[in-house]
Amino acid sequence: MLKIGNFEFQSRLFLGTGKFANFDIQKEAVDVSETEVLTFAVRRMNIFEPTQPNFLEKIDLQKYTFLPNTAGAKTAEEAVRIAKLADSSGICHMVKVEIIGCDRTLLPDPVETLKATELLLNEGFTVLPYTSDDVVLARKLEELGAHAIMPGASPIGSGQGIINPLHLSFIIEQANVPVIVDAGIGSPKDAAYAMELGADGVLLNTAVSGAKDPVKMAQAMKLAVESGRLGYEAGRIPLKRTATASSPLEGISI
Amino acid sequence: MLKIGNFEFQSRLFLGTGKFANFDIQKEAVDVSETEVLTFAVRRMNIFEPTQPNFLEKIDLQKYTFLPNTAGAKTAEEAVRIAKLADSSGICHMVKVEIIGCDRTLLPDPVETLKATELLLNEGFTVLPYTSDDVVLARKLEELGAHAIMPGASPIGSGQGIINPLHLSFIIEQANVPVIVDAGIGSPKDAAYAMELGADGVLLNTAVSGAKDPVKMAQAMKLAVESGRLGYEAGRIPLKRTATASSPLEGISI
Amino acid sequence: MLKIGNFEFQSRLFLGTGKFANFDIQKEAVDVSETEVLTFAVRRMNIFEPTQPNFLEKIDLQKYTFLPNTAGAKTAEEAVRIAKLADSSGICHMVKVEIIGCDRTLLPDPVETLKATELLLNEGFTVLPYTSDDVVLARKLEELGAHAIMPGASPIGSGQGIINPLHLSFIIEQANVPVIVDAGIGSPKDAAYAMELGADGVLLNTAVSGAKDPVKMAQAMKLAVESGRLGYEAGRIPLKRTATASSPLEGISI
Amino acid sequence: MLKIGNFEFQSRLFLGTGKFANFDIQKEAVDVSETEVLTFAVRRMNIFEPTQPNFLEKIDLQKYTFLPNTAGAKTAEEAVRIAKLADSSGICHMVKVEIIGCDRTLLPDPVETLKATELLLNEGFTVLPYTSDDVVLARKLEELGAHAIMPGASPIGSGQGIINPLHLSFIIEQANVPVIVDAGIGSPKDAAYAMELGADGVLLNTAVSGAKDPVKMAQAMKLAVESGRLGYEAGRIPLKRTATASSPLEGISI
Repeated sequence: MLKIGNFEFQSRLFLGTGKFANFDIQKEAVDVSETEVLTFAVRRMNIFEPTQPNFLEKIDLQKYTFLPNTAGAKTAEEAVRIAKLADSSGICHMVKVEIIGCDRTLLPDPVETLKATELLLNEGFTVLPYTSDDVVLARKLEELGAHAIMPGASPIGSGQGIINPLHLSFIIEQANVPVIVDAGIGSPKDAAYAMELGADGVLLNTAVSGAKDPVKMAQAMKLAVESGRLGYEAGRIPLKRTATASSPLEGISI
Repeated sequence: MLKIGNFEFQSRLFLGTGKFANFDIQKEAVDVSETEVLTFAVRRMNIFEPTQPNFLEKIDLQKYTFLPNTAGAKTAEEAVRIAKLADSSGICHMVKVEIIGCDRTLLPDPVETLKATELLLNEGFTVLPYTSDDVVLARKLEELGAHAIMPGASPIGSGQGIINPLHLSFIIEQANVPVIVDAGIGSPKDAAYAMELGADGVLLNTAVSGAKDPVKMAQAMKLAVESGRLGYEAGRIPLKRTATASSPLEGISI
Repeated sequence: MLKIGNFEFQSRLFLGTGKFANFDIQKEAVDVSETEVLTFAVRRMNIFEPTQPNFLEKIDLQKYTFLPNTAGAKTAEEAVRIAKLADSSGICHMVKVEIIGCDRTLLPDPVETLKATELLLNEGFTVLPYTSDDVVLARKLEELGAHAIMPGASPIGSGQGIINPLHLSFIIEQANVPVIVDAGIGSPKDAAYAMELGADGVLLNTAVSGAKDPVKMAQAMKLAVESGRLGYEAGRIPLKRTATASSPLEGISI
Repeated sequence: MLKIGNFEFQSRLFLGTGKFANFDIQKEAVDVSETEVLTFAVRRMNIFEPTQPNFLEKIDLQKYTFLPNTAGAKTAEEAVRIAKLADSSGICHMVKVEIIGCDRTLLPDPVETLKATELLLNEGFTVLPYTSDDVVLARKLEELGAHAIMPGASPIGSGQGIINPLHLSFIIEQANVPVIVDAGIGSPKDAAYAMELGADGVLLNTAVSGAKDPVKMAQAMKLAVESGRLGYEAGRIPLKRTATASSPLEGISI
């Protein structure tokens, strides 16, 4: 059971709703993923424009917890404004702080992320900041009261998977709130790896929506997250140079 | 559906039966893994010594295909003798050629493996040779008529996972028979990775039997193999340096 | 030629002076490294206690530029105090901001590092902040006016080398001031790699002082830094899957 | 001092002579590399056709030891024929067995390589076989009497560097003859890494001839090989998860 603030989830896979070829594929992918948390960029909402197609039109809004993100914000103030807009729509119960600090790499801005997290916590939000894998920054976000920490595995949409498992491990080990690995997941092995490192969940979008067969990939990701979690709980064998070696490697690059 | 010679399998996970703490745990792990192929070292059989405990005593022999291996053989001749011994027991339908060429690393002997494969094929066996990830050697084994190729991911029991995904990819791409990645798998992400590279199956033992909770790890591995296979079929996103990069990485280290 | 603030250096290797077995070995290692910049923790200075042995007693103070660091500081204020203490000694012309935010991993505190950098710049120091490889944080440090950026390759003293070449590349590409890769370098290949990525210099200490033969390792590191720099300038071949592949990999994991 | 058969070399860098833009650049690169061993494909020799330009026309033949290779051979017999052709020219004292078993990947044929090595040893050649990183195959080549073993780091011309440092380490540890890492070196860090693993030398060609500035890269490689060798001799620090960890990693992925 994953608990974030007052929310509880059976599934440890958070799925982004963007960039699907059409809403039918989106819906089917969401279904087979068995996710309980759907994320989306608030700026993509058009709930106040009822004449426009709704990007969640095929989704049963009662079935899911929605995690809007503040993508598009460059500052803490903008992020707060976006979060409040989402909140006012009534379907959003949590907010993912996403403040991009670099348009080329889409990596997050640590200072504005800290600030926005603090402001949104003061407003009573359940706050999940997307952050780099800076270990001390992650701790500071938790100290502010963040309800979960969302470190990136690699740049958004890059599909490069987990570049720095050491930093993710450090973040996971020090955390007393859930750690959701976010951004950069490219394939099932990456999602399994994040979970094996002890992450509490994984958030991904492009890896599914951009796959040749998004529905099948959604199913793969569901299994990968379950598999990695079980592997973490089962306690893997130590790394050894050879099986005949007397002592195990105490490696982190597990 | 995985076809090796005349055999057909739904499951793509082959499980070794050795080194479990006891036969109850062994049985339970085998059950939850949903494997259809069990491997074991013929030298561990004591079918001719009915007063000794049978290492498969808890296993329903009708439910599984057995893949005995020739571990302990140092030469092709020894391997053939061991294979015939297994064959005479009546429960064995295929043989995994395993001829260790180095006691320290447990890496296979390419020359004796080639020779044993040829001899056993001449005897009518369904032959699956365990081999290094030497790409040309793998092709030669197939040219001899091997029914599947079993390249190692890393040394037996090391848990190091896939060290050289490039060689495995080359072997998979050139093969017209199934490729079962064997040896070195340490955790679910490794099994998923092998399958994502396009392997037709994974064989593992220590990763399950040596886990803190072998039964839970068996379940994790079952899901990992399914997940990786689905991921392969679904067609993953390309690697990009950043999502905003104009062109994808054509990397093999996916 | 490496220029940092008003300083110019031929050598791109910065060497730490701590943890040598004795001052003779320290001196010899410093000599053969041909470094021009020596770093040390101000708290290890005992220039005000003339009865104590001086940890630089064998070093010709006229030959080197000294880069004191603020190790031991937990806050920006402490770092400023330490920097001023160093400055008052008269031998120190620059300061490396080093504010550890985690006693276990020795990773830096991004918030206090930003603050200290700003304060010390206001005091007129030439400031080189040691930082994580957070890309946006590095840019903010430069925007404050830092004279060089010192991202870590991996945790201090870990010898793990460059875990995240992508982040280092991003930092190097965006920077208009020198980037000195600091912390985690374990062997010559790591130093060469940092330079090949385009770093302007490398700072290391344990890799030399902790080697079995520190003097020989100092020489190795000197050559590695030169080699990596030349390799960067020479323009390496692209990565290809095979030499017969039609198109190169555009990988970053070069 | 590197000894191979009756030959002794100060330099541990073997340089290929192919694919340079012109012979002036080739000569200059050879000069600054300070190599003592030049390799070339016998089939590119035109010593019997004096009207054709000589691909070594700028090279002082007295200054170097020449290591012709048998590239182009698909079988042991062809390799022997090529080696004898080179021998009859009088400038060649050793032969590198190079029998490609796969046109796409340019990976070597283990069976023909073994056979050619045996045949050429019987003919009295000093024989250096290019081989995959199959550990048992490398031992068999040494048992035949090969004067050095030349395992590949990655496919010829790929620039991917050392993909499997574990196998190279095993080969180096078991060998009683020199190990020269051959093929796949892309940049100075790769050459340094091979030497740090304990290799006795490095052979490369494309990494220099294909660089934007081949002469500068030749110099970089010279320094990288020296640096890696010194680093090996100096004894690097152990890998640790953090410097504050109680026990070092016993990793091989150093």
